Amino acid sequence: MLTKLHEEKVFKDPVHHSIYVQDLTIWKLINTPEFQRLRRIRQLGTSYLTFHGAEHSRFSHSLGVYEITRKIISQFERNGYADWPQEEKLLSLCASLLHDVGHGPFSHSVEQIFGTNHEEWTCEVVLGDTEVNRVLREVDPRFPEQVASVIDKTYKKPIVVSLVSSQLDADRMDYLLRDAYFTGVNYGTFDLDRILRVLRPYQGKIAVKESGMHAVEDYLMSRYQMYWQVYFHPVTRSSEIVLRQIFQRARELYDTGYEFAFMLEPIRELLAGSITLGSYMKLDEAMVQTAFGQWAEERDELLSDLCGRFMRRQLYKYVPLTSEDRDWLETVRDEWMRIGLDPAYHMEVDTPVDSPYDVYKTGALPDGRDKPPILILDEREQLTEISMKSDIIRSIAGLQRGKYYMYYPADRVFPYAGQLSPETRKKLSI
Amino acid sequence: MLTKLHEEKVFKDPVHHSIYVQDLTIWKLINTPEFQRLRRIRQLGTSYLTFHGAEHSRFSHSLGVYEITRKIISQFERNGYADWPQEEKLLSLCASLLHDVGHGPFSHSVEQIFGTNHEEWTCEVVLGDTEVNRVLREVDPRFPEQVASVIDKTYKKPIVVSLVSSQLDADRMDYLLRDAYFTGVNYGTFDLDRILRVLRPYQGKIAVKESGMHAVEDYLMSRYQMYWQVYFHPVTRSSEIVLRQIFQRARELYDTGYEFAFMLEPIRELLAGSITLGSYMKLDEAMVQTAFGQWAEERDELLSDLCGRFMRRQLYKYVPLTSEDRDWLETVRDEWMRIGLDPAYHMEVDTPVDSPYDVYKTGALPDGRDKPPILILDEREQLTEISMKSDIIRSIAGLQRGKYYMYYPADRVFPYAGQLSPETRKKLSI
Amino acid sequence: MLTKLHEEKVFKDPVHHSIYVQDLTIWKLINTPEFQRLRRIRQLGTSYLTFHGAEHSRFSHSLGVYEITRKIISQFERNGYADWPQEEKLLSLCASLLHDVGHGPFSHSVEQIFGTNHEEWTCEVVLGDTEVNRVLREVDPRFPEQVASVIDKTYKKPIVVSLVSSQLDADRMDYLLRDAYFTGVNYGTFDLDRILRVLRPYQGKIAVKESGMHAVEDYLMSRYQMYWQVYFHPVTRSSEIVLRQIFQRARELYDTGYEFAFMLEPIRELLAGSITLGSYMKLDEAMVQTAFGQWAEERDELLSDLCGRFMRRQLYKYVPLTSEDRDWLETVRDEWMRIGLDPAYHMEVDTPVDSPYDVYKTGALPDGRDKPPILILDEREQLTEISMKSDIIRSIAGLQRGKYYMYYPADRVFPYAGQLSPETRKKLSI
Amino acid sequence: MLTKLHEEKVFKDPVHHSIYVQDLTIWKLINTPEFQRLRRIRQLGTSYLTFHGAEHSRFSHSLGVYEITRKIISQFERNGYADWPQEEKLLSLCASLLHDVGHGPFSHSVEQIFGTNHEEWTCEVVLGDTEVNRVLREVDPRFPEQVASVIDKTYKKPIVVSLVSSQLDADRMDYLLRDAYFTGVNYGTFDLDRILRVLRPYQGKIAVKESGMHAVEDYLMSRYQMYWQVYFHPVTRSSEIVLRQIFQRARELYDTGYEFAFMLEPIRELLAGSITLGSYMKLDEAMVQTAFGQWAEERDELLSDLCGRFMRRQLYKYVPLTSEDRDWLETVRDEWMRIGLDPAYHMEVDTPVDSPYDVYKTGALPDGRDKPPILILDEREQLTEISMKSDIIRSIAGLQRGKYYMYYPADRVFPYAGQLSPETRKKLSI
Repeated sequence: MLTKLHEEKVFKDPVHHSIYVQDLTIWKLINTPEFQRLRRIRQLGTSYLTFHGAEHSRFSHSLGVYEITRKIISQFERNGYADWPQEEKLLSLCASLLHDVGHGPFSHSVEQIFGTNHEEWTCEVVLGDTEVNRVLREVDPRFPEQVASVIDKTYKKPIVVSLVSSQLDADRMDYLLRDAYFTGVNYGTFDLDRILRVLRPYQGKIAVKESGMHAVEDYLMSRYQMYWQVYFHPVTRSSEIVLRQIFQRARELYDTGYEFAFMLEPIRELLAGSITLGSYMKLDEAMVQTAFGQWAEERDELLSDLCGRFMRRQLYKYVPLTSEDRDWLETVRDEWMRIGLDPAYHMEVDTPVDSPYDVYKTGALPDGRDKPPILILDEREQLTEISMKSDIIRSIAGLQRGKYYMYYPADRVFPYAGQLSPETRKKLSI
Repeated sequence: MLTKLHEEKVFKDPVHHSIYVQDLTIWKLINTPEFQRLRRIRQLGTSYLTFHGAEHSRFSHSLGVYEITRKIISQFERNGYADWPQEEKLLSLCASLLHDVGHGPFSHSVEQIFGTNHEEWTCEVVLGDTEVNRVLREVDPRFPEQVASVIDKTYKKPIVVSLVSSQLDADRMDYLLRDAYFTGVNYGTFDLDRILRVLRPYQGKIAVKESGMHAVEDYLMSRYQMYWQVYFHPVTRSSEIVLRQIFQRARELYDTGYEFAFMLEPIRELLAGSITLGSYMKLDEAMVQTAFGQWAEERDELLSDLCGRFMRRQLYKYVPLTSEDRDWLETVRDEWMRIGLDPAYHMEVDTPVDSPYDVYKTGALPDGRDKPPILILDEREQLTEISMKSDIIRSIAGLQRGKYYMYYPADRVFPYAGQLSPETRKKLSI
Repeated sequence: MLTKLHEEKVFKDPVHHSIYVQDLTIWKLINTPEFQRLRRIRQLGTSYLTFHGAEHSRFSHSLGVYEITRKIISQFERNGYADWPQEEKLLSLCASLLHDVGHGPFSHSVEQIFGTNHEEWTCEVVLGDTEVNRVLREVDPRFPEQVASVIDKTYKKPIVVSLVSSQLDADRMDYLLRDAYFTGVNYGTFDLDRILRVLRPYQGKIAVKESGMHAVEDYLMSRYQMYWQVYFHPVTRSSEIVLRQIFQRARELYDTGYEFAFMLEPIRELLAGSITLGSYMKLDEAMVQTAFGQWAEERDELLSDLCGRFMRRQLYKYVPLTSEDRDWLETVRDEWMRIGLDPAYHMEVDTPVDSPYDVYKTGALPDGRDKPPILILDEREQLTEISMKSDIIRSIAGLQRGKYYMYYPADRVFPYAGQLSPETRKKLSI
Repeated sequence: MLTKLHEEKVFKDPVHHSIYVQDLTIWKLINTPEFQRLRRIRQLGTSYLTFHGAEHSRFSHSLGVYEITRKIISQFERNGYADWPQEEKLLSLCASLLHDVGHGPFSHSVEQIFGTNHEEWTCEVVLGDTEVNRVLREVDPRFPEQVASVIDKTYKKPIVVSLVSSQLDADRMDYLLRDAYFTGVNYGTFDLDRILRVLRPYQGKIAVKESGMHAVEDYLMSRYQMYWQVYFHPVTRSSEIVLRQIFQRARELYDTGYEFAFMLEPIRELLAGSITLGSYMKLDEAMVQTAFGQWAEERDELLSDLCGRFMRRQLYKYVPLTSEDRDWLETVRDEWMRIGLDPAYHMEVDTPVDSPYDVYKTGALPDGRDKPPILILDEREQLTEISMKSDIIRSIAGLQRGKYYMYYPADRVFPYAGQLSPETRKKLSI
C-alpha cells in the first residue's frame, strides 16, 4: 500500500534544513493543483504588513508539519515501540500534509465575515472531486474518509489524531519555528530535536519522557511569546480590521445589488455566500489582492478608501483602552458621526482574548473540541498531566492577557481635531 | 536638510536583525505607494517554485540595501574619515533605498519579452509624477535628479555611486545574505560585519583594508555558489521559460487582435508595448498571477496550457546538452512537429552564460557599464586591484561555467514515445 | 583621563561576534598578568564534565561583560540621555571588566571549604600590589578605590553599580548567552540586542522601556531554564561533591601533619588557610588539576581514590530522595559503615535550593545584598517594578524547585549488594 | 560482537547538537582514563591565545569524528548499499573515536622538539597495556590490531581507512566545523548534512554523488579560509614559537645536567627522550602549564623569561619579510648579539608553507602517505577525480601561499632602539 519512491525526494527548507519524501502517494499529493495552490496563501495572513519577512506560504508550513510527523514516526519505528500502530504511518503522513489544504486567502478574516470554516473545506477537498481525492483513492477507496476523520478528530485511534492535533502537535511545532524564522523574532525557538527524541507512544496516547519536560516548558513559553509578540501584534490586528471591513463592505454592496466595476466569479460566489469547491480552489491571495487593487478605484467611497489603505499599508492607528473608557467610547461614537465618519467602519474595539488562545489548557471543554493535554511519562511508567509536574506550567496555565485597543483612521480624524473634545484629543495625543 | 525623526523607527528584519530609520525623508519614502508596491514583487521571481521559502519581496531587499549603506556611512562618520563627503549621506541613503523601485513583476522575463528596463523605470519613478518624487522634492527641488544620477551611475562623485553599485556594493551584499536565508541554502553566508568594518573611503573610491581581504574572498565564493546553486538552478530556469512563453504567446495573440476573456488595463498596455508610469505602478505579481489563473481557461490552447502549467507548477523537464548535440536538436525539432508540438514553444535551449554573470570582473567593458573593481588598501596606503593580491580571486576571476539544457514538456512528449527515434528516447530516458 | 587607542582593538568572540577595545586603560588591564590568569580558570567550574563544550574561561566572560556594558553606555551616549552621568564611562567599563578578577580555580567549591570569597579577592587585586592596581592608578590615584566600590556595591552613584550588578546586569546577560553557546543547549538565548535598545537611564536607575518587557520575560525564562538544565545538573553537582571532598580531605590531612608526596606553595597556603595575594594569583585550574593527578598516587587511600575519580571522571552516582526518605538515609549510613565506607565522604545529600537562586526576587533582603529589581518605564514616565506589569513574571517570581539527591560511589557499593537491605537495593536499582 | 546499549546515550554537543552512543564498546572506550585524558588537551594547542573561545578539547573533537562516521555508516545502511561492508561498522567507529588518542599536550610543538609522533602513540595506546586495549580485546583478541591498522592506514579494506583519513574524512569535517564554532569565525561552515547525504560507497572507495559537488567545493573553500584565518594566524605562530623555545631550552638545560627547582617525572622523561607509555598518559596541558608557571621563577634567565611570556601572553611581535630581506636578517643577527640577545632564541623566521598544507592535493606522493583524493560518481556510474569536474577546485588545487615573518621579543629590543641601524628601525616601526 505504501509505495516507495525509487529515490527519495528532498525539499530544501530553511526551518528543517531538508524535507524528505519517500512515498509515491506523498509525492503525488504535493503535486496536485489543490496543494500547489497553498503556495499562494500566506501562513500568517496580513502579518507581512508588520513583519516584512513573513511572506511564507501555507505550502511551506504544510511540508513542515509533514516532516515533523515523519520524524516522530521514524523515531517510533527505530525504537520499535509496541504502542505505535505501524500500519498507520501513511495515514498519519497524509493527514499531516493535508491538514491545512482547505485554507483560503486570509482565512481568519474571511471566516469571520462569511462564516466559512477551513477544516470543513479541508474535508471537502479530501472527499470531493479533486486531484487530492483521486490520489488518496489510489491507496484504498476508503482512504479519503480515513484521512478526513483524522483531520476532523473522529478517527478511531486517538494516537494518530494526536500527532496532527494536540497541545504538542506537529502543526504547532512547525508554525512556531517557521513563523519565528520568517518574521525574524527569536522568541519562537525551542529544542525541536530534543522534543522529538523524548516523545513516546503509550497506551494509545503520545507522552513525553520526564527528562524532556524542560524542553516542553520552553516550547510553551515560545508559544506564549509568539502570541503576544507576533500573532496579536496591534499592527497586524489593525490590518486584519481593515481587511474584514473590506469584505464586510463588499458583501453589503453585493447584497444591495451594487454593480462592481471589477468582479471575478469566485469572489462573487464568496460574497453571495454560495461558493462551490471548484471556485474555492481558484480563490487565492493573489486574486484577492488584485480585486482590492481594482476596487481601490470603485465609486463606492468607503470600499475604495479601505482597499486603498490596504494596498498602500495606510492602516488604522490604535489607542489602548482601560475598563474605564466605556463612556469615552460613546463620546467618540458621537464625535465620529459629527465629523462625518461611520462608527461601524471607522472605530473598532478589539481584544485578542476573543481569540481562542491560552498558553496551555488542561481541562477539556464541554464540546470536546479541546486539544489533548501534554502527558509526562515517568520512570515508573506513570502518566501525569504536565502541569502537575511543572511549577512553571502550572503558573502560566490558564494565563490570559487581554489588551484592548480602539482602532481608527487617524488621517481622517486629525484634520477635525478642533471639533473633538479635550478628552479625545488627549487620548489620541493630537 | 536632513530632518531627524523624533524617535528612530525600527523594522524587524531576519537578515540584519533590525533596520533603523532615523531620517524623516527615508520614513516618508518607505510609506509611499510606489515603495509599498515592492511588497507585491518577489526578490527572486519564480525561484519560489524551486525553493519554497523564497517568497521574500523586493521591499525587504530594498530595506536591507538601505541598512547596509547606513551602516557603512555610520562607520565612516564614527571614524571621521576625511575622504568621505559627509554631505552626501542622505543622497546615498535615498538612492540605496530606491535603487530597485522600478522593478516590475517577474522583471527578468518581462524585460526580455517586452524590452522594458527596470533601471529606466526606477529613474521615471524618481523623476515622474509620483509620491516618491514629491517626498524627494521636499528636500530640494534638484534632489530627485541627484538621486536618479546616482542610480544611473552618472553622479559626479563616484564614491556615492560605488556604495550602491560596484563589485562589492550594498545591493549584492544584501541579496546574497537574504536569498541564502530565505531559500535555506547555506552557501551565501559571509562575514558582513567584518567587511563593513574594513571598508575605507579613499581618494573618491571605496577600498578594503588589506586585513579584510579574506572576508572579501569568502564573499566572492558565496557569490559563485549562489549563482550555481540558486540563481541558475535548472528548475528555476524552467519556470522562467514557461513564464516567458506565456508573455510571448499573450503578445502574439494581442498583436493579432485576439479577444481575451480576461484582461486588465495595465496588462493590456504591457502587451501593447505602451505602458504608462501610472499603469506600471499598478502592475504587480498578484495581478500577473491572477491573469494567469484566468488565462488557464482561455480558449487559445497554447496560452491556456502554459498558464495552467505555471499555476500548478507543472514545469518543463530538462536534459543536459553537450556541444555534440547540435544535430540531435535538429532531429528533435522534426520529431516535435511530427507529434504535434510547436518547436517555438515546446523546446527551448538555455544556457546561463547568456546571463551577465562573472565571478569577478577586473577589466571595464567598452560601454563603461562595468562595475568598479574591488580595491585593496595596504599599510603603505597603496591601492591594488584585489586579484593582484589574492591567489584565489585570480584563480576564479573570469571563471564561467555554461551548462546547456534543452527544456520541454515531458507530459506532452512521453505519450508519443513510440514515434521518437532511439537517440531521442535514450536522451530523454523514456 | 580617557585615552583613546590610536586604532580600536577587536577580539573575535563567538557570542558577541566582536569585542571592541577603544581605551588604552582597558587594553592595558587586559594585558596584566592578573587578568590573563583568568584564561586558566573555567567559567563553569566542573560543568565541562557534564557538557564537554563548556571549557570556556572567565577571561572570555569578563570580556563579554565589558562589551555589553560598553554597548549599553554607547546607546546612552548616542541618545544623549541626561540621566546618564557621562563622566562615569571609564569607571563602569573597568569595573565590568574586572568584576571577576578575584575568582580562583573552581571557586564555588573552594569557597565552601576554605571560606574564601571571590568578591573580596577582586577588591584585593584592584587595591593591592598588582599590575591591575598600577594601571588603574595611572588614571587617578583614587581610581582603584572607585573601581572597588563599584564592585562591592558601595559606590555613590547606584546607576553605575546597577550596570554591573542587578537583576538585569551585564554579568548575567553575558553568562546566560555564553554558557548556552558553549554547552550547546539552546535554552539560554534571548534577544540581547532588543534589551540593550530598551534600557534607559532614569533618575539614578536603569529602567526598561515598556515595549521591551517581553524581551525581559524571555531573559528571565532563559535564566530559569539554564539553572535547571545546566547549572544544577546532577552530574555537575556530583563532580562538585567529589571536588569538595578532595579539598576537605587534603585539609584534614594537612591539619594532622600528613606529608604530601606532591605539594606546591600556593596550594599549601590554601590548605593552611593563610594564602597571600601573590600565591593566590599563581593558583589556577591547571595547578589544581596537576595536584589532583599527582595526589591520585598519594598513600592516603581516601585522597587517592577521590583524585583518581576526578581525573578519570568516575563520579558519584545519584538517587532522588523524597521527604519520606529521612529514615532510609539513617539505614544507609549504617550500611555504609558496615561495608567499610565512610558516610562523611561516601554519601552526600545535596539540594540546589541551598544555592542562592531565585528566578526573580522583588524584595530586598535585610542585609541589603539583594540585587536591584527590574523597573519598567512606561509612556507616562512612571517606574513600576516588572512583576506588577507582567503576569508571567508574577507567576514565576519566587518559584523555587528543590530536588534532593543522595550521591554515592556506586562502584564501591555494588560489590557488597548482598549485604544491603532490600529497601536500599531497590532504591539503588541493584 | 556489537553489543547494543539498553538505551542509547546522548552527549550534548554544540556542533552536532547531539552525539549518539549505541554500542557498549564505544561507551566503555569513552570512559577509559586514556580517552578521558583528552579532555585536558586542547584541540587547537595555543590558538586560545589568539581566539579566546578556542579552549575546546580533543575529547570533544574525537566524539565529533565518531558521530560523523556513525552518521555516514547509518546512511549507507539505511540505503542498503551493497558496496559497504556492514561487518566493519564497529571497527570504523572505534578507529574514528580513537584516532587522536595518542595526542599529547601541545602536540605540534612537542613533536618538533622531541621527535615524538602522535600516530605512533595512538597505536601504542591501542596495542599496549591500557584500558583502551582491554576494552577492545573484549570484542576480539585481534580487534586492537585491526583498529591500529585502520589508524596507520594499512587495513586491508581501504574504504574503512577512507572514512577516517582522506581528503574528505570525518576528521576534517569535524575539525573545520568545530574550530569555526569555538573560535567564532564564520569561515569554516559548510553544508555537512548535504555532504553526508551524497556520500556513496563504491567499489571499495567512498565517492560523492555529482549533485553534491558544490557542497564539496564549499568545504574545500572553508578549509582554505580556516588555514589562513585561524591555523596560520601569526599570533598563534608566535605563541607556538615561544612554546617550542621553552621546550628547547628545557632540554638543553636538562642535557647539561641543570637542576630544575621544579620537575615532574613525565616531563623529566620527555626531556630525557625516554618517556614510557604510562608517563605519556599522565602528561597533559594542565601539567605543562603548571611546569611553565613554576619555571617562570627558575634561575636560568632564558627559561624563566620564556615561561613568563607564555603565562602572561607576552608573545613575540612579528614583521613580514620579503625575499629581499635575506641580507637584512644577517644585519639583525649581528645587531641582536650587540644588544645582548641570543639569535637562536630571540629571532625566528617562520613560514606556514613548511607545514604540510595544500588546499587539495590530487597526486599521491612517493611515500604513499597522501590522502585519497575526492571522487565524483556521476549518473553513468563513472568515477572522476573532482578537479577534473570542478573549475573552482582545479583553480585552487595546489595553491599555496607562504607569508614569511620574523618573530622577536619587542620589549627586549625597543629599549636599545638607538643602537639599531636605520633599516632595522624602519622595518620594526620603532
